[in-house]
Amino acid sequence: MVKKLQAYNLQFFYYMLDFWVINRVVNTLITRGDNVNSIDGKAINTIRFLAVDAVDRANSGHPGLPMGAASMAYVIWKDFLKISAKNPEWIDRDRFVLSAGHGSMLLYSLLHLFGFGMGIDDIKNFRQLDSITPGHPEYGHTPGVETTTGPLGQGFANAVGMAIAERKLAAEFNTPEHKIIDHYTYILAGDGDLMEGISSEAASLAGHLGLGKIVCLYDNNHITIDGSTKNTFTEDVDLRFNSYGWHVLKVEDGNDLTSLKEAIGAARAETGRPSLIMVTNVIGYGSPNKAGKAEAHGSPLGKDETRLAKVNLGWDEESEFMVPEEVYEYMDKIAEQKSSVKKAWDGLLGNYKAAYPEKYKKLTEWFESEHSLDWLLSDERITKDYSSEATRILGGDVLNIAREQMGNLIGGSADLNSSTKTYLEDSGIFSREYRTGDNIYYGVREHAMAGITNGITLHGGYRAFCSTFLVFSDYMKPSIRLAAIMKIPSIFVFTHDSIGVGEDGPTHQPIEHVMNLRSIPNLSVYRPMNLMETALAWKKALERCDGPSAIILTRQKIRDIRPYSRDMDKGAYIVIKEDKEMPDAILMGSGSEVQLLEEARTILLKDGIDCRVVSFLCFEDFEAQSAEYKKELLPSEIKVRISVEAGITMGWDRYTGDFGMTIGIDCFGASAPGDLLMKKYGMTALNVVSAVKESMKRTL
Amino acid sequence: MVKKLQAYNLQFFYYMLDFWVINRVVNTLITRGDNVNSIDGKAINTIRFLAVDAVDRANSGHPGLPMGAASMAYVIWKDFLKISAKNPEWIDRDRFVLSAGHGSMLLYSLLHLFGFGMGIDDIKNFRQLDSITPGHPEYGHTPGVETTTGPLGQGFANAVGMAIAERKLAAEFNTPEHKIIDHYTYILAGDGDLMEGISSEAASLAGHLGLGKIVCLYDNNHITIDGSTKNTFTEDVDLRFNSYGWHVLKVEDGNDLTSLKEAIGAARAETGRPSLIMVTNVIGYGSPNKAGKAEAHGSPLGKDETRLAKVNLGWDEESEFMVPEEVYEYMDKIAEQKSSVKKAWDGLLGNYKAAYPEKYKKLTEWFESEHSLDWLLSDERITKDYSSEATRILGGDVLNIAREQMGNLIGGSADLNSSTKTYLEDSGIFSREYRTGDNIYYGVREHAMAGITNGITLHGGYRAFCSTFLVFSDYMKPSIRLAAIMKIPSIFVFTHDSIGVGEDGPTHQPIEHVMNLRSIPNLSVYRPMNLMETALAWKKALERCDGPSAIILTRQKIRDIRPYSRDMDKGAYIVIKEDKEMPDAILMGSGSEVQLLEEARTILLKDGIDCRVVSFLCFEDFEAQSAEYKKELLPSEIKVRISVEAGITMGWDRYTGDFGMTIGIDCFGASAPGDLLMKKYGMTALNVVSAVKESMKRTL
Repeated sequence: MVKKLQAYNLQFFYYMLDFWVINRVVNTLITRGDNVNSIDGKAINTIRFLAVDAVDRANSGHPGLPMGAASMAYVIWKDFLKISAKNPEWIDRDRFVLSAGHGSMLLYSLLHLFGFGMGIDDIKNFRQLDSITPGHPEYGHTPGVETTTGPLGQGFANAVGMAIAERKLAAEFNTPEHKIIDHYTYILAGDGDLMEGISSEAASLAGHLGLGKIVCLYDNNHITIDGSTKNTFTEDVDLRFNSYGWHVLKVEDGNDLTSLKEAIGAARAETGRPSLIMVTNVIGYGSPNKAGKAEAHGSPLGKDETRLAKVNLGWDEESEFMVPEEVYEYMDKIAEQKSSVKKAWDGLLGNYKAAYPEKYKKLTEWFESEHSLDWLLSDERITKDYSSEATRILGGDVLNIAREQMGNLIGGSADLNSSTKTYLEDSGIFSREYRTGDNIYYGVREHAMAGITNGITLHGGYRAFCSTFLVFSDYMKPSIRLAAIMKIPSIFVFTHDSIGVGEDGPTHQPIEHVMNLRSIPNLSVYRPMNLMETALAWKKALERCDGPSAIILTRQKIRDIRPYSRDMDKGAYIVIKEDKEMPDAILMGSGSEVQLLEEARTILLKDGIDCRVVSFLCFEDFEAQSAEYKKELLPSEIKVRISVEAGITMGWDRYTGDFGMTIGIDCFGASAPGDLLMKKYGMTALNVVSAVKESMKRTL
Repeated sequence: MVKKLQAYNLQFFYYMLDFWVINRVVNTLITRGDNVNSIDGKAINTIRFLAVDAVDRANSGHPGLPMGAASMAYVIWKDFLKISAKNPEWIDRDRFVLSAGHGSMLLYSLLHLFGFGMGIDDIKNFRQLDSITPGHPEYGHTPGVETTTGPLGQGFANAVGMAIAERKLAAEFNTPEHKIIDHYTYILAGDGDLMEGISSEAASLAGHLGLGKIVCLYDNNHITIDGSTKNTFTEDVDLRFNSYGWHVLKVEDGNDLTSLKEAIGAARAETGRPSLIMVTNVIGYGSPNKAGKAEAHGSPLGKDETRLAKVNLGWDEESEFMVPEEVYEYMDKIAEQKSSVKKAWDGLLGNYKAAYPEKYKKLTEWFESEHSLDWLLSDERITKDYSSEATRILGGDVLNIAREQMGNLIGGSADLNSSTKTYLEDSGIFSREYRTGDNIYYGVREHAMAGITNGITLHGGYRAFCSTFLVFSDYMKPSIRLAAIMKIPSIFVFTHDSIGVGEDGPTHQPIEHVMNLRSIPNLSVYRPMNLMETALAWKKALERCDGPSAIILTRQKIRDIRPYSRDMDKGAYIVIKEDKEMPDAILMGSGSEVQLLEEARTILLKDGIDCRVVSFLCFEDFEAQSAEYKKELLPSEIKVRISVEAGITMGWDRYTGDFGMTIGIDCFGASAPGDLLMKKYGMTALNVVSAVKESMKRTL
């Protein structure tokens, strides 16, 4: 009896073992991303080793993320991502944002396999001059790259912007039968992304807004550059995202394709909340000596370790940049299937056009980037007379006038609408319940605001702006810079542009900010002095296609000055012309300080000194002018040149020259009424007068 | 029977009513912050109405926060805060950080009542020129103000730094009998503070580090400038802070002094986790028409509403700036009690001095701000010969050498220690378990890192630095600027300082950054070209008492150049002197570009052109020199002046002048090996040679 039982037990044990082995093998064949015997496993290993080989060849880059996250990225791309490689700009494509941009080779491998015109030679040229495979993904440079990432957290915020644009467009254009805009936004984020403040801000807002079509895969690999996340990052990410109102899921094994597919499916099914899928991955997965270690993060595996990793994952150890033919064939089939979805959408759009010609026309127009606002400058509300006004007030007026012919203009403020005056009067607040609202309330989240504005702009369909006080442009700088790098036309409105802020004191008074913004390549910075210049700034910002703009406005009132010249659109131009053939001096400045120049000119005329007054509305636009125009405006023979601006003097020297003088503020401000501060810090007409006389002495 | 029951019920009802009324009255008398009959209530109303009257008189400011948060602030200050008004810089005082700096009048009212030398006339001068009551609290300007706040979230991060300093000092100096350093850090934060990314970063790190002596009172008033937090901020703050590992408590009625006291007591008792107390407050509490509304946030109540509020809270409606005599007497008594705690501490310190003279000496030295590192420049490890090296490597060496005589030097990196090389070799990582570690691992949280570095510096006892890539200085700018405003000597190390970064591409390549940092008033920016300049930069940064410094270092190697002149500490100086009496040209640059100047000089000499080579180690230091020295270095008669720097040209014009040329990079970089990029972007000796010849033509 005992023996019988033992035999039975043994038999049962073997039976169970058998079951387990078979199950495991089948499971492995079907669902694991590290099994070289399945076609999926082969494709995933292709992704891994293209990355490893490219980083090795460049002797620079990040193999760890592509190796660890290949399976989850593959599942999204293969099983879910709505894309058409031949139409990388299809407006209803799913957006895939690699927020952890250092894992660029992951994306390049995917773009290669999914047929986005990324050749194997491009991959071999990873990180080389003029390649389409730069160190971090660059929007506008590589087809299929949705945004430029690398500075951590930015992609996450961009994705929130894309998801806002998607929901708004869907609300605006879809009909029960025509879901013209209906796509997901996927994010691949790492530990670094989630540690950055910008992603906290953006995630909180995404939860608040119920952006259910965001699916973020968190590459939870417990490793950062300096080692284990145990040293720095022990918060409960699950709880944190729950606190923001997100739907959180977990996949315990990042190579378990079935679980990944189930989780992504569940995330997509949840439409009321954005989803975070925490996927436990191993950085540098497959590398026998570096997997799970910081060494795998940002350095090539090296020849020997690469060989070991290939052996370990059943890859041909002699191969380099290998893509098995069957993987190409398989991926081609998948790409074909995906294209058929696009074709079906084309059909739907055709029906839509027939059924709703007006909507269709509007949709097409909204996605066009070029348009003209010439009418704005001759609108009587712009050419009207007025005595004095704060340019922030004028800016709000211009915005709402421009808006009348730009239905796709949306934007918001970081809790300063009441001060920056950028509220769109004819619309409400974009919210979970009211998806057509054009005013986005960002809360006190400047950085996310800028990143989200970029994301809306990247998505297409809308022209997005955002606003806050100029001093808080500091909170947004990383995103402003990325807009400039990407050459996308985000618009940043900054009010309270000098010590004219007054009582709020030095923490709220910009000093270096206007010039710092001017110093960002490809950012057009406008600091208007009156209604007409404000309108021109908005017109140029809204018409621009190849880069962002910043519009800098005052808190305080400025007298209107009607300029002599019509060269306003040349960036710098004559506001008051000299009476003589040639001026005795040139007075230059921008915004609120131009009125001081006018006053100084009047005073100086009494002494027989005849000045030209020049407004520098936009340095960038002026620098783009012909040498002739520049010389005409600032003739080299006129040595007495004074600049005045209520900010740092740096940057003006190139216009004032060896004998000129720069009047500005090279220290922090103080808390007091703004007009008192302007006097205290030397922003007076009399100071300009003295400077002219001093400069004249220098030339003697 | 029924009647009897009814009677009984009625009697019971009356009994209960009685109980409730008595209870309520007693409760009100004793424990409510809006009851003018209790001395506490009177003191709290004094705080409220000093704020209201000051804002009314200035016709500018924020009455809402002081009115709503007066009770909770009062409870901290009266019942808990360890302070001595006569010794506002007592090293073991509790720190109170008003992160919501716009509520400055709350703090000024408290400083007035608690005897910090804040007179009633100062309060009447709120927001006026040269008053000690500026719009936002300013450190170093008003005794008792622990940090400059206003830009939201900054104070929160500062407080985390203070708490780190406290725990480290306690671990370093305390003995079982002598708790010389043992204080709390209190934060008063509003919705805006908690929405900002910097506070998310700092809170996550504080939880990770188990900084249990932080007690943050969250002024949960559901209102921001643009309206209800329902529009923007619906996350579950309780859950969020739990996810960070915080201890979260709630007080449902912000005028319930008993509950406040209990909650603060419980928060203090929890030493393993930082505590957040969510206090439900009403913004503008007491104002019949504005309480609970955004209107109360940032505008004066106005004469009529102020009168109504005073009537409503039982205050003399005719009074202005009223402090009842009994409140003064009561507060004097409390201030006296608090001073006695300081006296006891003095006694303890005396014992400590006797028992541990060495520790005492070290403690004293660590809190001294002035010290000399003259020895550093003659240390043989600094004067040694070497051929070429990256300045980031040299920087790490210098840091660790300087460290030998600066035991109180602490710092860390935002997950880039392995790249920035600022690890302190003789110490470990500061953590929950290891409080004496001098290396702080910040994670990928640049903004909080900068704010925390400021907090450590503000606390005193330590000299704190932090490091990351130069391009990420953008993430930290708001905190760097505040260090400069506060005149505190935080040290910011930025490596990977140009396109020399190479393959990582434009997102990681600084262009405008060096010059942008130079443009911040009161920030000393050093960009050294060799070991000696790197040592000088560290020496000056460490010796500086009146402001922050930034040290800018290369990723790539630079040849060592031994300069001719000993004027290195003058900011700009002659590296190679001309052979002639006067040079034909002046070549100037900084850091990695000085070696190009040397090469160009050699080439030009062959053509008989004799150049002076000038290194601009630090613009700020040079600008502080005498006119004579400036003229001597850059004689006005030498018109051929060329600057080279691998960044924007803006800012160099003032030195190159009308005939000179600036060589730099006014566009974004690209992904490729760094040396290739340097050539592609014109950073070559031959380009300098051409510029010299072109400039010579201009002078003809």
